[in-house]
Amino acid sequence: MEDGASRASIRRANLGLALRHLRAGARSRTRLAQDMGLPKATVTMLVAELVERGLVREGEVARAGMIGRPPLELELDGRGLCGLGVEISVDYVRAVALGLAGEELLDQWVTIDRPHDHGPVLDTAADLIRDVIASLADMGREPVGVTIAAPGEIDRESGTVVFAPNMGWSGVGVVDGIVARLGSSAPPVSIDNDARLGTVAEYAFASAEGVRDLVYVRGEVGIGCGIVAGGKLVVGSTGFAGEMGHVRINPEPVRCACGRLGCWETMIGFTALLNQVADPGDPLFDNTRDLEERLAEIATRARAGDERTLAALDRVGADLGLGLGMLITVLDPAVIVLGGYFAHLGDYLIDRVHSAIDETVVAPRVGRCDVRLSKLGFTSAARGAAQAVVDEVFQDPAAANGHR
Amino acid sequence: MEDGASRASIRRANLGLALRHLRAGARSRTRLAQDMGLPKATVTMLVAELVERGLVREGEVARAGMIGRPPLELELDGRGLCGLGVEISVDYVRAVALGLAGEELLDQWVTIDRPHDHGPVLDTAADLIRDVIASLADMGREPVGVTIAAPGEIDRESGTVVFAPNMGWSGVGVVDGIVARLGSSAPPVSIDNDARLGTVAEYAFASAEGVRDLVYVRGEVGIGCGIVAGGKLVVGSTGFAGEMGHVRINPEPVRCACGRLGCWETMIGFTALLNQVADPGDPLFDNTRDLEERLAEIATRARAGDERTLAALDRVGADLGLGLGMLITVLDPAVIVLGGYFAHLGDYLIDRVHSAIDETVVAPRVGRCDVRLSKLGFTSAARGAAQAVVDEVFQDPAAANGHR
Repeated sequence: MEDGASRASIRRANLGLALRHLRAGARSRTRLAQDMGLPKATVTMLVAELVERGLVREGEVARAGMIGRPPLELELDGRGLCGLGVEISVDYVRAVALGLAGEELLDQWVTIDRPHDHGPVLDTAADLIRDVIASLADMGREPVGVTIAAPGEIDRESGTVVFAPNMGWSGVGVVDGIVARLGSSAPPVSIDNDARLGTVAEYAFASAEGVRDLVYVRGEVGIGCGIVAGGKLVVGSTGFAGEMGHVRINPEPVRCACGRLGCWETMIGFTALLNQVADPGDPLFDNTRDLEERLAEIATRARAGDERTLAALDRVGADLGLGLGMLITVLDPAVIVLGGYFAHLGDYLIDRVHSAIDETVVAPRVGRCDVRLSKLGFTSAARGAAQAVVDEVFQDPAAANGHR
Repeated sequence: MEDGASRASIRRANLGLALRHLRAGARSRTRLAQDMGLPKATVTMLVAELVERGLVREGEVARAGMIGRPPLELELDGRGLCGLGVEISVDYVRAVALGLAGEELLDQWVTIDRPHDHGPVLDTAADLIRDVIASLADMGREPVGVTIAAPGEIDRESGTVVFAPNMGWSGVGVVDGIVARLGSSAPPVSIDNDARLGTVAEYAFASAEGVRDLVYVRGEVGIGCGIVAGGKLVVGSTGFAGEMGHVRINPEPVRCACGRLGCWETMIGFTALLNQVADPGDPLFDNTRDLEERLAEIATRARAGDERTLAALDRVGADLGLGLGMLITVLDPAVIVLGGYFAHLGDYLIDRVHSAIDETVVAPRVGRCDVRLSKLGFTSAARGAAQAVVDEVFQDPAAANGHR
């Protein structure tokens, strides 16, 4: 209930509302006041604060057919601002910066060799962030915040990776670690789950088509999953919603990295794929090689008609469809986006995924869910992290420091 | 985006907001204007409309320690109004009426023998609605709407039961059928899924404790399931979210009433329980008997230590926990409420349910989800349907006709 809301918090909420109206298109003060259902005097004060913060600018806009002096139009500004997202993964640390309109300003990444050593990984991440902030400064942009995307279970409050079995991390204070390395002049740092942030990035695209219900499933060493229901990200009561990779689906009691038996990840994680595609000793198992390079090699084998590779991809496609069928039955999304390696090898998976879904989903619903491959590749988590920073500006412009 | 919102729709939204503030507690016009961040003149106009519609009343409220004339306090009224919910199930048709504050005004039900004959079932439902509307009129109450709760897949737009295998219904126009029987003077009629409306009823209670993420799972002949995430009901892109009963979990290829193999319902639906508890010919299979009576008999056998009954309940508890573990892993709810027969036999199921969840859910989360038994018994769907009508008044008071 809004009962306890103070006037200050209503003012902050109205600042965000005004900014979201202007994101949808430039308009006059009078029109904005009408659209918001607020007195013009109130809107004039809100606009003054948004201009002061560098988020809105005004100018005369001439329109064909108008007679007399055109009204002053307000439009989204934020030219000096951006959101910075940084993904920490088993294979790399990647930074993406987005402007307020969602335009990509920068995409930069560094490979890491020993993900288990969290100290050196945080050193690498902090160095990358410092470099990127310098590059952005050269472009006249200052990040209003940095969001870290990390795998596994994340405690956002304390900024900690609680448990990320594939990194070998348990209770690593990532936010404190990054802040300590960057020093006090750095922008505010936050953290969230990589798959959830990938979902934010995919939803930013799909929502433009009117999609309100979306599930994102991403295949890497682990399986990440994020859910948007009715236009809102589902986070769960303790922040752990979307751990679909650890739903017990495998009829075989295969041990998962999480310690339990039969998780979906043991059927469709990258390691499960590798074990079906090749025997130990095969160069595909060399994890000092770049992941994208290894995926390209699997695709090459499939294209050449290698039977073992094709059988493995058929098996993974069927098992992927089995779990997606469950998600469709429970959540009824309009769109499922497949990311990570599922997108890279999608051409060899998607037909089998569709047929497996058709077998498992209640009949009248078949075909209504659009299962598609991500076009964001391995940038989705970092991009979503940057998008989360940008979205926060539109939720609470008062939290963004004034820059011009 | 609020971009396209007209002033009229903003006014309607503000009416609802004002009414929701007053639901949280009586207050003066001045205080309400402050709480809403709107000018007092605007709030005075909104209040006048709410008073006109019989939703709000005003009176002087003396307070200890106050000197001088006390301000006029506004408070929720709606004494002449109510919400009416009607559940159509395999065993009965049930009507529940709730006042605006959620207080129960009436609970009345009729057993049905042949659920497959939809014509006579709709006759029974319409007769019950007529009776109940007359009783409510004697109490000085008029329903602002009737919501029907029905099993299976519902198309809310057309008011149709698309597919309810356990009723044997396919494409039954329930809303049109009821409206035709009641005549044009009846209140507006709508329809939704029974389990989803049961979720509305359970959430109305749990939200008072601050719960924002809840899953409701109800065992009858079929398995119903409803999801609340972040305080919002998850309906899905085509309205079919929550069909958890038809997720393929059963390792045995048992045929489900929906036509597919291995649905959760084939493990834990009431029929699955019966088949484990008794052999055909056992009086428990006599479905002309009242369901609650048969459940009481199963409980009596369990209390008496009947081995077959206890083994069956242990099996069902384990299989129930298996599916709940999946829901917890995907959705991370604070609370799961078990309704229908799960609540009736809960004492004999709950320990096994907990241990099965502990086996399937990722370790750090164990114990965080509160799995509890519904206290609403078989009234939940009808009560939730009535609650949905009441909630609609708070969302859009302008849609409620003026009554005094």
